[in-house]
Amino acid sequence: MHHGHVIDVYRSWFRAPDGTEIVRDVVRHPGAVAALPLLDSGEVVLVRQFRAPFGREMLEIPAGKLDVAGEDLAAAAARELAEEVGLAAGRMEPLVRYNGSVGFCDEVIHVFLATELTPVAHERQGPEEEHMEEVRLTLDDALAAVWAGDITDGKTVVGLLAARVRAAGR
Amino acid sequence: MHHGHVIDVYRSWFRAPDGTEIVRDVVRHPGAVAALPLLDSGEVVLVRQFRAPFGREMLEIPAGKLDVAGEDLAAAAARELAEEVGLAAGRMEPLVRYNGSVGFCDEVIHVFLATELTPVAHERQGPEEEHMEEVRLTLDDALAAVWAGDITDGKTVVGLLAARVRAAGR
Repeated sequence: MHHGHVIDVYRSWFRAPDGTEIVRDVVRHPGAVAALPLLDSGEVVLVRQFRAPFGREMLEIPAGKLDVAGEDLAAAAARELAEEVGLAAGRMEPLVRYNGSVGFCDEVIHVFLATELTPVAHERQGPEEEHMEEVRLTLDDALAAVWAGDITDGKTVVGLLAARVRAAGR
Repeated sequence: MHHGHVIDVYRSWFRAPDGTEIVRDVVRHPGAVAALPLLDSGEVVLVRQFRAPFGREMLEIPAGKLDVAGEDLAAAAARELAEEVGLAAGRMEPLVRYNGSVGFCDEVIHVFLATELTPVAHERQGPEEEHMEEVRLTLDDALAAVWAGDITDGKTVVGLLAARVRAAGR
């Protein structure tokens, strides 16, 4: 139906268990990785980034699409972390994996918890990344922003909540 | 670019702060509501539902698209709760609001916490809903399924994590 830079849209036919035919539009997405950088100080490192679907900036954890088929997920998360906030993680742990919009899109987002952070040179790519602004918040303040509706980005909401539950012993 | 049953795809032109022109494909979505039904027993009520983008069933909290412009969100969540699992909620509290896929889609999902639950007649609609199977799990077991990667649906992951953080006093 549509072939784009990031997404492709297909019209797909499925058969339900009772034999009924179902027609659905499905967006194919390459998948994404995200890293929640948690400093020893207890602060998380976020970026403020322009998002076209909303026509405004949003506060998010560093993330990016999977560009290369078969790319190592932790390596991809490390690449985005370096590019967007200039940090390297001594530990990059899988935190949670989820699907963003199961009704119409096959996107999977792999969220990592990045700790033991040290500075590295960073090089932002593309117009959105070039205008990123870095924001540091305590995990408490970031979660307060989730409850207040000031942070609404899905991977960021998932990452912050998961980090809190995990820190509390799950 | 594409006009579908659930989603429309637009090619949009934006101007970055430095004047650079950005072209992005944007999926327009009507938005959705979801309700995490938490029983007095500590169990959550989930549904197993066929999802076309994955060609298989997924375990999710009751949810649905916003059909009517200006529809009351709590009322829409109550409608889905009744339709999908035959429950009415004495309390329907806003839990968290988030955007599923900020890179390419404007979808917003409003997640409610549904408590003080009582049975009502339910009537499922459409081929996916008719084949739903209800599944009850303790919140602990549901969260274990999130960590294990057995529950990956975004709104369900967000709802379960948010309910746990909230129960712990945020």
